[in-house]
Amino acid sequence: MTGTTRQLAAFVCRTKTSDLPQNVQEEAGRAFLNIAGCMLGGAHHDAVERTFRTVAPLSGGPQAHVIGRTETLGLLDATMVNCQASAAHAFDDTHLATVIHPAGPIAGPLLAEAERTATTGAEFLTALAIGIEIACRAASMLMTPPAEPELGWYMTGIACPIGAAAAIAHLRGLSEDHTVMALGLAATESAGFRQTHGSMCTSLVPAQAARAGYLAALLAEQGVTAKEETLEGARGFADSFAAKAHLPHATDGLGERWEMQANMAKPYPCGIVIHPALDGCLEITRQPGFNAAKITRVSLSVDPLCLYLCDRPTPPDSQLAQVSLQHWVAATLVRGAAGIAEGNEAAVADPDIQAVRGRIEAKPDEKVGRASAIVRVEQSDGASFEHHVDHGIGSLERPMSPAQLDAKFMAQALMALPEADATAVLQRCKDMPQLKNAADVAKVMMG
Amino acid sequence: MTGTTRQLAAFVCRTKTSDLPQNVQEEAGRAFLNIAGCMLGGAHHDAVERTFRTVAPLSGGPQAHVIGRTETLGLLDATMVNCQASAAHAFDDTHLATVIHPAGPIAGPLLAEAERTATTGAEFLTALAIGIEIACRAASMLMTPPAEPELGWYMTGIACPIGAAAAIAHLRGLSEDHTVMALGLAATESAGFRQTHGSMCTSLVPAQAARAGYLAALLAEQGVTAKEETLEGARGFADSFAAKAHLPHATDGLGERWEMQANMAKPYPCGIVIHPALDGCLEITRQPGFNAAKITRVSLSVDPLCLYLCDRPTPPDSQLAQVSLQHWVAATLVRGAAGIAEGNEAAVADPDIQAVRGRIEAKPDEKVGRASAIVRVEQSDGASFEHHVDHGIGSLERPMSPAQLDAKFMAQALMALPEADATAVLQRCKDMPQLKNAADVAKVMMG
Repeated sequence: MTGTTRQLAAFVCRTKTSDLPQNVQEEAGRAFLNIAGCMLGGAHHDAVERTFRTVAPLSGGPQAHVIGRTETLGLLDATMVNCQASAAHAFDDTHLATVIHPAGPIAGPLLAEAERTATTGAEFLTALAIGIEIACRAASMLMTPPAEPELGWYMTGIACPIGAAAAIAHLRGLSEDHTVMALGLAATESAGFRQTHGSMCTSLVPAQAARAGYLAALLAEQGVTAKEETLEGARGFADSFAAKAHLPHATDGLGERWEMQANMAKPYPCGIVIHPALDGCLEITRQPGFNAAKITRVSLSVDPLCLYLCDRPTPPDSQLAQVSLQHWVAATLVRGAAGIAEGNEAAVADPDIQAVRGRIEAKPDEKVGRASAIVRVEQSDGASFEHHVDHGIGSLERPMSPAQLDAKFMAQALMALPEADATAVLQRCKDMPQLKNAADVAKVMMG
Repeated sequence: MTGTTRQLAAFVCRTKTSDLPQNVQEEAGRAFLNIAGCMLGGAHHDAVERTFRTVAPLSGGPQAHVIGRTETLGLLDATMVNCQASAAHAFDDTHLATVIHPAGPIAGPLLAEAERTATTGAEFLTALAIGIEIACRAASMLMTPPAEPELGWYMTGIACPIGAAAAIAHLRGLSEDHTVMALGLAATESAGFRQTHGSMCTSLVPAQAARAGYLAALLAEQGVTAKEETLEGARGFADSFAAKAHLPHATDGLGERWEMQANMAKPYPCGIVIHPALDGCLEITRQPGFNAAKITRVSLSVDPLCLYLCDRPTPPDSQLAQVSLQHWVAATLVRGAAGIAEGNEAAVADPDIQAVRGRIEAKPDEKVGRASAIVRVEQSDGASFEHHVDHGIGSLERPMSPAQLDAKFMAQALMALPEADATAVLQRCKDMPQLKNAADVAKVMMG
């Protein structure tokens, strides 16, 4: 039975003008006439004036660098592409309580904006912290108990427009009234659901969130309005994106307790809920007597959310493998590593990895915890291994070390830059707090 | 008690770098270092390549006319501005069963696209019909019984990205596989909720929907992926935006029964659910003995949805008045007309209108029906009037006549163009089915 989407698509593709009944063709003419008049009538409306003034200067020539490439783009487009790049390998960062990945959607707009608004490195980082904080807070009121979440939303797309708007509002010094509207305009563009997980939407939804939040701040600066209580009001953000939101999570201890400190860099380029199991796998591969070729069975006990999001026993491509517990456990056991190479198409097609993939049994266990996992491996020679991961690398209790972060940076920088340049960029990034002009960082990241 | 949004906004505005604890500042540096590396690592990822190729040519110079103005913009920005203009006065069109306003979000992208892709007027209108049909179908599966709707969504923002993507996919001749992805990419950017109704979001949400749908089609053409079953799959479009969706409404009789034929031009520039009451008011103002200055009481019986969406007894500005049953009933009774002038700031501040506004009692009545209303007026001189509107003007049963549509067009065209030009444009719009190049219409609509 053909799916709804495909039926609609087939209709869209096959229908010719001659297939339209005469009265449908006439109706289309009337619809156009009507709407064309409406366009004329609205052309000088105040709201349209403001939107026009917002987008007109952005619609022109190249304005911001595209990281790791030779090109430049308009501010919003550079934001989108840079943010998408940051999410493309699912290697970014996670606020585990809400499972959002906020740094890309916040840093993307800031990098572009810094190229036209003189900003010190310190100011840049302040705006980044504020943006990430607001994104985490917005997500927390939807996701963190006693809130009752609706797990179907792609939370990064839902919360991060608000964080991006907050960051730009801060950097550009918007008034409080304008900032109220910036957050509201951003929230009304919150978008994304889990069905598209494991497609390119995994990185595109955050990219659109980044762009939407940036644009929201610029629209607000031009006086475009949302509502005073867009986040908390009836039929607003909180109402729409949770079964039951808990508003105090947005504001309790704001500026005292920084939720963004629970946003951790990811050690592995795949869905965050997979990570604890990979720690266990890596540990087991280092044991004497371990031999991936002899594996007969892999038993996993993981947090239920891990299976809710990443139970994909036979992912057909790298996008789906990115959110497949089974692929990553198998690849890590076979290769003894869990880097970008373990997630590419060759790895997904590797018969050794596929063989182990088919021997995995994963069980949800409420007692395990979101940053933990238990891995058991049995081999045909009778050997068996078991590892309990209490706090995975990259968890709040066991963050990546500075050296691990440097190594992660360099491994990725070398995908785009020669080694000398990569080393220089690493240093420049570390120097950010002292930089007189934050835009100098983007300029050295050209590929 | 300060609202959540304002508390967040205040925090965003007042926080300085020196307010951040040292470890928060350091965390920001780490977050940036990490995400900058991720940007480098993802810069040449396949998904990023595709997005880049999509937006790069759009990020350049002016590409499309802005209707009713002298400027041009990039394709996506012109789309957004033109669609917003079409919705700015809430004078556009409505598919009453789903309360969406699809023509602007579909015609906006088509007008821009027609400027770079040679298209006959007939082909243009076909794409418009298809786009409106798909938008109505997407909305119907969420809204029309036996579906159980969630009325908090701003349905135009939810359904119209899909319609816009369908229209562009059709016009550009995308393959079926690409069109599947176009609809999916559009759905994943569906956005907007009712809290922002009565702010500039009333026109901005459709504008963003238009842009999102257009971009979705272009992204799909470049091979960007969503899922095969983005609309109907678990945690997808239908799951996300209705309490219980009814999928068959999307496809039953597709191409045979055209839902877009139930999309009607609006006779009055305000919320559609207000319209039947205005018919009754206009009728009463024509009765002998009617005198607005003597009104002591106005009693309305309306469909419950009318009050759900538009019960605003004292709207403070024209944006909120646009969706205020009470303002429009009062303005229509006082002025004997219900045009754009009855919705502007002067009308909202008119003491005569405000006086009548305060004498209105509106009651929901399940038996009345969405296209109907009962209006009763009592005067201090003892006279009273009552009018039952069975099918309001602009309803399916009583559409606007060609002459009424022409008059509506001209009234709006004259807001942007001299009379001779307006008359010529009206003719050109009517000639659309015969035009060799659809773009000729946009070119003559310059203000």
